[in-house]
Amino acid sequence: MRAVAQQMFRTCDTLFSRKMSTDAVEARPSNIETAAQMDNVLHLPSSSQTFNVGAVMERAHHGGGWLLSGIIGVNILTLGCALVSGSAFNSVAITAVHRQIFLIILLLLTMLWMLFYAVVTSKKDQAVLFKDGHAGPVWLRGGLLLFGFLSLLMDIFKIATYVGYLHCDSAVKVAFPVVQAVFLIVQTYFLWFHAKDCVQRHTNFTRCGLTLLLSTNLVVWMAAVTEESIHQTEIPDLDVNVSHKMYRASYGSVKCKCSHSACDTFKDAFYYLYPFNIEYSLFASAMAYVMWKNIGRLVGDHRRQSVKFYPKDVRVGPVMGLLLAVAGLVTFVVYEVDILTEDEKNRNRALLIHFIMNIVIVSLMCLSTVIGCILFRLDHREHVSEKNPTRSLDVGLLVGASMGQIIISYFAIVAAVATGARGYLNALNLSWAVLTVLQLGLQNYFIVEGLHREPFHVMQEAALHTNAHAVREHPEMSVVPERQKSKYSMTSSPETLSWKRRVLKEVCVFLLLANIILWIMPAFGARPQFDHPIEIKFYKFTMWSAIVNIGLPFGIFYRMHSVASLFEVYLIS
Amino acid sequence: MRAVAQQMFRTCDTLFSRKMSTDAVEARPSNIETAAQMDNVLHLPSSSQTFNVGAVMERAHHGGGWLLSGIIGVNILTLGCALVSGSAFNSVAITAVHRQIFLIILLLLTMLWMLFYAVVTSKKDQAVLFKDGHAGPVWLRGGLLLFGFLSLLMDIFKIATYVGYLHCDSAVKVAFPVVQAVFLIVQTYFLWFHAKDCVQRHTNFTRCGLTLLLSTNLVVWMAAVTEESIHQTEIPDLDVNVSHKMYRASYGSVKCKCSHSACDTFKDAFYYLYPFNIEYSLFASAMAYVMWKNIGRLVGDHRRQSVKFYPKDVRVGPVMGLLLAVAGLVTFVVYEVDILTEDEKNRNRALLIHFIMNIVIVSLMCLSTVIGCILFRLDHREHVSEKNPTRSLDVGLLVGASMGQIIISYFAIVAAVATGARGYLNALNLSWAVLTVLQLGLQNYFIVEGLHREPFHVMQEAALHTNAHAVREHPEMSVVPERQKSKYSMTSSPETLSWKRRVLKEVCVFLLLANIILWIMPAFGARPQFDHPIEIKFYKFTMWSAIVNIGLPFGIFYRMHSVASLFEVYLIS
Repeated sequence: MRAVAQQMFRTCDTLFSRKMSTDAVEARPSNIETAAQMDNVLHLPSSSQTFNVGAVMERAHHGGGWLLSGIIGVNILTLGCALVSGSAFNSVAITAVHRQIFLIILLLLTMLWMLFYAVVTSKKDQAVLFKDGHAGPVWLRGGLLLFGFLSLLMDIFKIATYVGYLHCDSAVKVAFPVVQAVFLIVQTYFLWFHAKDCVQRHTNFTRCGLTLLLSTNLVVWMAAVTEESIHQTEIPDLDVNVSHKMYRASYGSVKCKCSHSACDTFKDAFYYLYPFNIEYSLFASAMAYVMWKNIGRLVGDHRRQSVKFYPKDVRVGPVMGLLLAVAGLVTFVVYEVDILTEDEKNRNRALLIHFIMNIVIVSLMCLSTVIGCILFRLDHREHVSEKNPTRSLDVGLLVGASMGQIIISYFAIVAAVATGARGYLNALNLSWAVLTVLQLGLQNYFIVEGLHREPFHVMQEAALHTNAHAVREHPEMSVVPERQKSKYSMTSSPETLSWKRRVLKEVCVFLLLANIILWIMPAFGARPQFDHPIEIKFYKFTMWSAIVNIGLPFGIFYRMHSVASLFEVYLIS
Repeated sequence: MRAVAQQMFRTCDTLFSRKMSTDAVEARPSNIETAAQMDNVLHLPSSSQTFNVGAVMERAHHGGGWLLSGIIGVNILTLGCALVSGSAFNSVAITAVHRQIFLIILLLLTMLWMLFYAVVTSKKDQAVLFKDGHAGPVWLRGGLLLFGFLSLLMDIFKIATYVGYLHCDSAVKVAFPVVQAVFLIVQTYFLWFHAKDCVQRHTNFTRCGLTLLLSTNLVVWMAAVTEESIHQTEIPDLDVNVSHKMYRASYGSVKCKCSHSACDTFKDAFYYLYPFNIEYSLFASAMAYVMWKNIGRLVGDHRRQSVKFYPKDVRVGPVMGLLLAVAGLVTFVVYEVDILTEDEKNRNRALLIHFIMNIVIVSLMCLSTVIGCILFRLDHREHVSEKNPTRSLDVGLLVGASMGQIIISYFAIVAAVATGARGYLNALNLSWAVLTVLQLGLQNYFIVEGLHREPFHVMQEAALHTNAHAVREHPEMSVVPERQKSKYSMTSSPETLSWKRRVLKEVCVFLLLANIILWIMPAFGARPQFDHPIEIKFYKFTMWSAIVNIGLPFGIFYRMHSVASLFEVYLIS
């Protein structure tokens, strides 16, 4: 009996001492396998060390913290989703105030964690030994800063508006934008400086913190999307003829009147800024997710190869692209001006111009992407075979984000086909949607193929080196059928290479500029999805506004991401 | 000029010859890197071969086919989603007939591909050189067979019903179940025999075929979920008091009358069988996804280690589990009988018993899972560090499927808390939801931890071997602090190990049986989510039925998957 008790006591002791000193345990070679690994690391030649590092890296992912952080994230996210849906579908039991209190708590917790993280990493230099050069690229951080600034503006307008309602509405409506404004500043600072970190200490705690950050941003995103959708459907009498007014409508509370005169202006302004806040949350989520994935990763200090950028290599692409971008900008301005007029004819003309311009852009993009894909088929560059988690993640985000636009386009196609696509506007709308789906598929293929090719300069060096080596050591390997050999040497001669490379680069630059103009139009307010009534009639307003408000921000994110990826493809082509 | 033309001609030739003979290209060492790899494979000792196989495996994933198949899958899926939503939200322009024509085309195409695949693999034995022993486990194939049989029954009832409407309704409504019945047989045959294949030839074509299979199943799943939800909301006057009737309501078409008398019976029967068809589609999707992931994989022929199953090792767990299962079954039968009565008192009593039973089951599960987690903390088994894609996939499916139940529970929690949870039924409902979330989190943690531990017997052998080796070769490594060492040797002595192992096994068996009863209840018709009106009142019927109809099949899938995973944890503990 005493022996059993003693045993239990010792067991408890073991349990707690392990629990308390998790970090210490992680550091020492506590058990057999790690010892064996250490053994390998110490005694094998350096070439096999990378393999062992890989094994250790893999192991770090299987710790309890990884799972625990996932569970925390899922719970916050699901609770947030339920609360947001609840407040959307039942505004009596759960009001916007309840939702905002929940969000305030989340934001405060996240800020606390970010401050803690910043303090810890500034103190101990060992906490962050490695930086992932691919994480947090400049376009992502730049976008974060831009959208963060516009979101801050939105919060200021919100505060100014709801201060006017303080005498008859909840103070939480002022408190929430205040907290959110502080959060925006803290988070932008945090992500700007720490997006590249590969944390090595307190990994479990950091994992949980990062899923908190990620899920907070996603809950904010959900709340903003819902609020935007509800706002758009605020006019109760759903008449399709006024849908264009509905979208840019003015609103007035029924019972509670604003105490200062600038209220309506501020309200208009902050609702106009909502899409930027939605975009900001997506950017921050993407960066938090990459940081979470990078915890415990041991990356070598291989900086990005400094491939030089020769703008004079290419001519046709930039010229065509710039022409297209300028034309797109002009029609965009015309569209924005004309669509606000009451005159039906003017509005239809604006839509017509917008549709035609988009069809031209997308068709030209398809054409050039097809040329690019054929060139990939022609050149004999090898696919990169080494594992690169950052690139896989990048490609995943790119393809995932393209889903937003694809879904919108397919819904538009179904609506147009089902109603017979009568009239030139409907026909144009249908063609635009079909071409967009085609373009997205082709562009995804082009970018992924391009990113997975060996860079040209690496390729050339390797070819010289390895060919000589292979022939010297294995003469039997060089017996390749004569026809094949001649073909190979022909297509890979420097002269043809440079021809193909130039065209590839032209294609990249053209696509890059076209993506920029396709980014500008929806990002700065073009919403033909609401101005052209066919889909609203078909799916009813609630459903269609949900689809567009969820899909379009992903589409905008996709365009920015494409620009960055195309630039990378340009450099390695 | 002539030189340029010649050049272009040769280029085209290269392009097409490459395109035509993709398979041949894949087989020969076409380029530098593969040559270098071959070199390694041929000349390095066998220990490093696995590494090279890994590299080749990775490469196979980056081919164009992988991307192309993804694009095809995404397009079918999005188009299907748009069509299904369109027919749900606008039954004028897109009727069920349109949707069914689309589905018939998809099913026919998929069947064609499956037949082609079966013929090709039966002819050439080289097409499938490797089989993944972990893919398509017996529970998945068994479930597929069971649900496939019930879905077939559903289709037969559907045919019998709609034959009665042939004189006044579209013939497509008969054609669709006929095609689907044939599809069910072909697909079940296909997945039963080919789920373990790791295809090595025609990989691109097979990839595209498998995404076709996957997306077809998902579109069928979406269509079934939508149809089920629409059917449940068919009674237009949404009175909460009759919600229990609504769910099991009878239906009659207004204009078109059935020509034979058994129509209503058949209709009742086939709507009752819908959930099984939904489940079948999920099972088939999971298996198709695993097959898709396995294309081009080179797995060693390591069969599952034959760990023996000693039922006499454990006693408390099975006894407790069986008692719980029997009690659960009894209350389930009582619930099913009482809930159909019109008497409000009877129905409340049925709900009371069901809630209490579920709370007891879930609480006991939480308790035993906590014990299991503590035991994992106590024992010093190492995490498995080798990569195992099948296991990662398995864990991903498990955790993903648990989301269904988690979402339902959180929505229930929000509804109960927001309405104040007045009355004992609401309080019980709330506790059940909270405990379910807790239980799912704990169980996910327990299963994932358990699956990632080194099996005990492997561990013991390794310990004996490596310890001796390490001490012999590196005496400096054996200098471990005395206290730590004594603790370690104490806890890993065979006697204590067997104590901990026994308790772990008891926990596994108990959880396994508890999961079985939690599977039986929803799988065979218990729907307290619709019988208890609070959530319907809160979220409105449409939204709540969508949540439950999407979430619950995943929850059922999760319980079956858990049973299989717990059995595996039992074996390696």
